[in-house]
Amino acid sequence: MTHTPIDPAELTAALIRCPSVTPEEGGALGVLEDVLSAAGFACWRADRGGIANLYARWGDKGAPRSFGFNGHTDVVPLGDEAAWSVAPFGAEVKDGMMWGRGATDMKSGVAAFAAAAVDFVQQTPPDGAVILAITGDEEGDALDGTTAILDWMQEKGEAMDVCLVGEPTCPEEMGDMIKIGRRGSLSAWITITGKQGHSAYPHRAINPLPAMARLVDRISAHTLDEGTDHFDPSTLAVVTIDTGNAATNVIPAAVRATVNIRYNDIHSGDSLTEWLQGQLDAICQEMGVNGALEVKNSGEAFLTPPGNFSDLIVRAVEAETGRTPVLSTSGGTSDARFVKDHCPVVECGLVGKTMHQVDENVSIEQIHQLKAIYGRILRDYFAG
Amino acid sequence: MTHTPIDPAELTAALIRCPSVTPEEGGALGVLEDVLSAAGFACWRADRGGIANLYARWGDKGAPRSFGFNGHTDVVPLGDEAAWSVAPFGAEVKDGMMWGRGATDMKSGVAAFAAAAVDFVQQTPPDGAVILAITGDEEGDALDGTTAILDWMQEKGEAMDVCLVGEPTCPEEMGDMIKIGRRGSLSAWITITGKQGHSAYPHRAINPLPAMARLVDRISAHTLDEGTDHFDPSTLAVVTIDTGNAATNVIPAAVRATVNIRYNDIHSGDSLTEWLQGQLDAICQEMGVNGALEVKNSGEAFLTPPGNFSDLIVRAVEAETGRTPVLSTSGGTSDARFVKDHCPVVECGLVGKTMHQVDENVSIEQIHQLKAIYGRILRDYFAG
Ligand SMILES: [Zn+2]
Ligand SMILES: [Zn+2]
Repeated sequence: MTHTPIDPAELTAALIRCPSVTPEEGGALGVLEDVLSAAGFACWRADRGGIANLYARWGDKGAPRSFGFNGHTDVVPLGDEAAWSVAPFGAEVKDGMMWGRGATDMKSGVAAFAAAAVDFVQQTPPDGAVILAITGDEEGDALDGTTAILDWMQEKGEAMDVCLVGEPTCPEEMGDMIKIGRRGSLSAWITITGKQGHSAYPHRAINPLPAMARLVDRISAHTLDEGTDHFDPSTLAVVTIDTGNAATNVIPAAVRATVNIRYNDIHSGDSLTEWLQGQLDAICQEMGVNGALEVKNSGEAFLTPPGNFSDLIVRAVEAETGRTPVLSTSGGTSDARFVKDHCPVVECGLVGKTMHQVDENVSIEQIHQLKAIYGRILRDYFAG
Repeated sequence: MTHTPIDPAELTAALIRCPSVTPEEGGALGVLEDVLSAAGFACWRADRGGIANLYARWGDKGAPRSFGFNGHTDVVPLGDEAAWSVAPFGAEVKDGMMWGRGATDMKSGVAAFAAAAVDFVQQTPPDGAVILAITGDEEGDALDGTTAILDWMQEKGEAMDVCLVGEPTCPEEMGDMIKIGRRGSLSAWITITGKQGHSAYPHRAINPLPAMARLVDRISAHTLDEGTDHFDPSTLAVVTIDTGNAATNVIPAAVRATVNIRYNDIHSGDSLTEWLQGQLDAICQEMGVNGALEVKNSGEAFLTPPGNFSDLIVRAVEAETGRTPVLSTSGGTSDARFVKDHCPVVECGLVGKTMHQVDENVSIEQIHQLKAIYGRILRDYFAG
């Protein structure tokens, strides 16, 4: 019985035609479930909080070796719909490119690993398990997405030995970068309160603005670190300061600022919260104001140290593209921040230049290359 | 022919009953014109820009001596109308107080000097001129108020040798303070512009917020001066900093701040503008941002040095109230800032505690005392 290889570009097109703007499933997971089921994958829905999630496994639970892929089929909204020059869910092809929302982020990635996984288990059935954990909630709050799948796996005794996240990772050329970790991201909302009054009688008021200014100056000028072996220096950006006082003759009662910190593996959400609180406390004591700090930590910094797993991926990328990818930890956050608590995780995908933009598009050649990379990774992993 | 003295409380009530919220005349200047004309004052309207202004003179133009009063009949809006416990334009009397918008600021003051002037010229016609310059635009922009009268006077060859502004000047008790000058007031709008970007890649952006923070810290911590003989130290208040950036992952392009400076006679609008521009330029150079400064100078600091004119007023206050008034330059601005370019000006009025508030009210006894003070000033001035 001969297996007909799956065309990953056709599968990408089928997924783009599903209008799966978060939190809508839009039929995308259904398309995948059909393809995977037909190839012998057992499929479960790990839905939670109105979000659809798909867990698919070929091979036995508790197999001696298992390899997992993680990705998402949800996409960001269209933005300025009138600015699109193609139908955003049309998957139109021209000049070797396929156009539509999710073309790079990341329906092509999901299609490439699903196609690679199906071909692999059909052509060279491994002594182990191939697992796909695909969520419909990555672009939103991600509260019921990959974490819901991981919780469901925990409950069912399902596990992956390693996991590859198929997000776009290449800044310029196919194969130029993979990600072995991510910086953490923390947002903090600082409120400083004084005492309102008339600006002609400032001694009767306590102006919170000079205190906020001094705090912002201090934390902005502070060097958090000089970077680490695999991470750039951490960065802090005060992104807004707001008072909303329209009266030039009134000293306001309060001022608010928002801070965003992208941090490396020297820091944690807790250590940074403690540092910010200390800076705020010092200003409050110094300037006679009151301060309040609210923190949201979107994800701790994490690293999958270079080793067997990253080597495997680097060799596959080199073989298929002729490029040696940089091992990076740059950029924003991804679901790898959740997977890293389950097993070693590396991100490897195609070029992400148009992600989240109007007229998002992907090179059809790159989709095929990505499937080839993923296929080679699977063969090497189970051969190793 | 016996003159019947004018009751200044009744005249105050008549003025309160005119709904003269800036820029409405509301009939108030008409009431005064009737009273003054009947007593032999020549009256002119120095209206401009839709604002009604009244200029009244008893005696000859170019008389050897002339004494002027300045005041306004316009009032601030009612504020929270439902919060008033009396009819705001009702001039209700209870417990020795008269209630209504403008009761202290400053229909009582205008009524007191109009009544004193009429009685004085009727009972002891002086060898000179008594002048009343009353505007309908002090609480608003004041562009077409007292300045319009002064421009009209200039054009017509009219002049006052000295001028008393009847604004409320006493903080606690009748007679406890007169004002011989006022601090200047300057507002400045500062915009600092950088380059927008994603907070995960701060090196590609130029964040304007740390620059603004450092500027605000510096100018807030700066001591403008230690005060002068007749003035308190100048004060600077940053009253608002605003960015309006709702996205925690975006470094904003620009931030704006507003500064209000109340300054004494060491400074001028020009010297402070130059200082602010220098501070902004230094920050722009230091932090690689662009800055823009916009300044509105509402009035220069000025002083009528203690001397014959203030002595005359102090003696009259002492005689009528038993208190020796402090010679102050505190508080906000008044139309004295315009009159000071025409002739020596002093402000002397009643207690201003409820001005601009809901349930504004005035002591009827104080209205009579104020008329007595003004009458004594007129007698002493023309006797001297
Ligand atoms: Zn994505
Ligand atoms: Zn006033």
